[in-house]
Amino acid sequence: VPQRPTRIAVDAVGGDFAPDAVLEGVTAALAADEELTVLLVGPGSVVAGFADARPRVEAVVAEDSIGMDEHGAAAVRAKKGSSIVVGCGLVRDGHADAFFSAGNTGAMMAAGTLVTGRLPGVMRPAIGTALPTTGDPCVMLDVGANADCRPEHLAQFAHMGRAYAQAALGIAEPRVALLNIGEEPTKGSQLAQEAYALMAAGVPGFTGNVEGRDVPAGAADVIVTDGFTGNVVLKLMEGLSKSLLGQVRDAMTATAVTKIAAAVLRPALAGLKDRLDPDELGAAPLLGLKGLVLIGHGSSGPRAVASALRIGAQAVRQDVTGRVATALAATAPPRPVPAED
Amino acid sequence: VPQRPTRIAVDAVGGDFAPDAVLEGVTAALAADEELTVLLVGPGSVVAGFADARPRVEAVVAEDSIGMDEHGAAAVRAKKGSSIVVGCGLVRDGHADAFFSAGNTGAMMAAGTLVTGRLPGVMRPAIGTALPTTGDPCVMLDVGANADCRPEHLAQFAHMGRAYAQAALGIAEPRVALLNIGEEPTKGSQLAQEAYALMAAGVPGFTGNVEGRDVPAGAADVIVTDGFTGNVVLKLMEGLSKSLLGQVRDAMTATAVTKIAAAVLRPALAGLKDRLDPDELGAAPLLGLKGLVLIGHGSSGPRAVASALRIGAQAVRQDVTGRVATALAATAPPRPVPAED
Repeated sequence: VPQRPTRIAVDAVGGDFAPDAVLEGVTAALAADEELTVLLVGPGSVVAGFADARPRVEAVVAEDSIGMDEHGAAAVRAKKGSSIVVGCGLVRDGHADAFFSAGNTGAMMAAGTLVTGRLPGVMRPAIGTALPTTGDPCVMLDVGANADCRPEHLAQFAHMGRAYAQAALGIAEPRVALLNIGEEPTKGSQLAQEAYALMAAGVPGFTGNVEGRDVPAGAADVIVTDGFTGNVVLKLMEGLSKSLLGQVRDAMTATAVTKIAAAVLRPALAGLKDRLDPDELGAAPLLGLKGLVLIGHGSSGPRAVASALRIGAQAVRQDVTGRVATALAATAPPRPVPAED
Repeated sequence: VPQRPTRIAVDAVGGDFAPDAVLEGVTAALAADEELTVLLVGPGSVVAGFADARPRVEAVVAEDSIGMDEHGAAAVRAKKGSSIVVGCGLVRDGHADAFFSAGNTGAMMAAGTLVTGRLPGVMRPAIGTALPTTGDPCVMLDVGANADCRPEHLAQFAHMGRAYAQAALGIAEPRVALLNIGEEPTKGSQLAQEAYALMAAGVPGFTGNVEGRDVPAGAADVIVTDGFTGNVVLKLMEGLSKSLLGQVRDAMTATAVTKIAAAVLRPALAGLKDRLDPDELGAAPLLGLKGLVLIGHGSSGPRAVASALRIGAQAVRQDVTGRVATALAATAPPRPVPAED
């Protein structure tokens, strides 16, 4: 039985290297996946010719765009004809299964929430991201949508992250942990202590607290934290990896002799560099919406775009949105019984 | 004019490798610094013979000790004769200029606050620590004493961290920054936004927000954050550095040929490994007390102990406690004028 194709809308003009990097990434993704159809969203001058020349690409004209430095929510309200607003609308209306943009993150958060819309019962959509570890990548959330969180938000993030890890990463029974500053349930901030109690009572696969040092070791498949801490962790991992590998490279290229030794080691070290490359890990889903919205790094190159579409298509085929909805419905507090009088 | 010696009390039985690592570290520190006197605190069987055989070492007998897994505050209340309580008392009573222990961190925090005592006006003592960067180390605080903070706590941490960087690291005009998830003053959590406003109004050398990726790049000399975020950052940096260097080592020792290349590169990479080694950075001061209390890593080896005593002696000679007191006194709100009635 032939399935219908997976339809992913792509912002042609989002990101520092758009449109070239986006178009190149789309071409690579289409070549790798015959069941993929791309709805390319952007100005007619960018999308029409590209779509005409290729099977499985449809042009969706959106002449306006939101710049990287604009205030996200304000721009979304003001620019109904922008590629980000149009793309999120395609998901809302069922024309696309997912929308990817490497453009303005704040605008993606706002358009995801305001245009695509939240699933029933979702208090706060959260940004999940795959972090490299010494083993398989783990999903951390929230990494920036919600700087201030309540314990019940974190518990809900846990359910959403678990469903995403199952659908997008193919982990049947993810190990779900809370980021904290000690192992015992009574450690940490008020927020962490109360979130621990909620997660221990209601999240399948909850394994307790993990500390900062456990994150790169792959101690859990899903790590839950507030958007302030998660954003600091994400950016620190990017910065420190880059800094350390740069220092290793400097040491290797210090003299003619070390350069020869470095040339011998280059293939062995290339695998490590690739594993740490954010481009390999695709895009960050904004979880809790009525469809899949994928936020790419502003500096996404062609490989990052292709990787985002590959992981996005996998998540769509495994019905990530349906799984998140089911997980949340199963955990929703029972509707209060109206008092008889 | 001969100055009086710098007297540092040292917990002989604190840490995973005590007493051997401590005694070896003390020996090295004494050899490197002729103006240093050590008050060695611990059971008579450990400290008496060692002190008798060496000039500039005095034995202070404390037969009891607090284990690494005991509840800190409870143990401090129950064990008045423990090395940690006795050591903090030596500082309180002016018999020592500083006290170092690699023992139970919670007990050190409790004894520092309850026994040594807070400086006037200090709301919350904070743990500062030196983090390795691509440039000079920077001081981050708080890294774990206060999981929940208010904006005025963070502003006070900034003053204390600045005074410590001046005294212990010799930086005349430290660049002081707030850890946040965006550059603009309006970014981040409620706590970060309010702390930004207080710091901008009152902290000399305040340079604004830094993000996670800026920390390893040495973007500031003093980085202020709450004890939850700071502890996650500290442990993540330790874990990720260890993990990445381990992966580099694995790549280098993969085959006979890469092993030869690795041998050529070893000296060049040794400097990097040393720079990232927490042992090089000594101990973490508990700032805001009436004397210098230095908390060592539980896994401190001889080099870490010696390094802690070196940095501690420098901080004492530069009058870190007096500088913190002066900085706080200058920023204390004016005493409210009593209403006349």
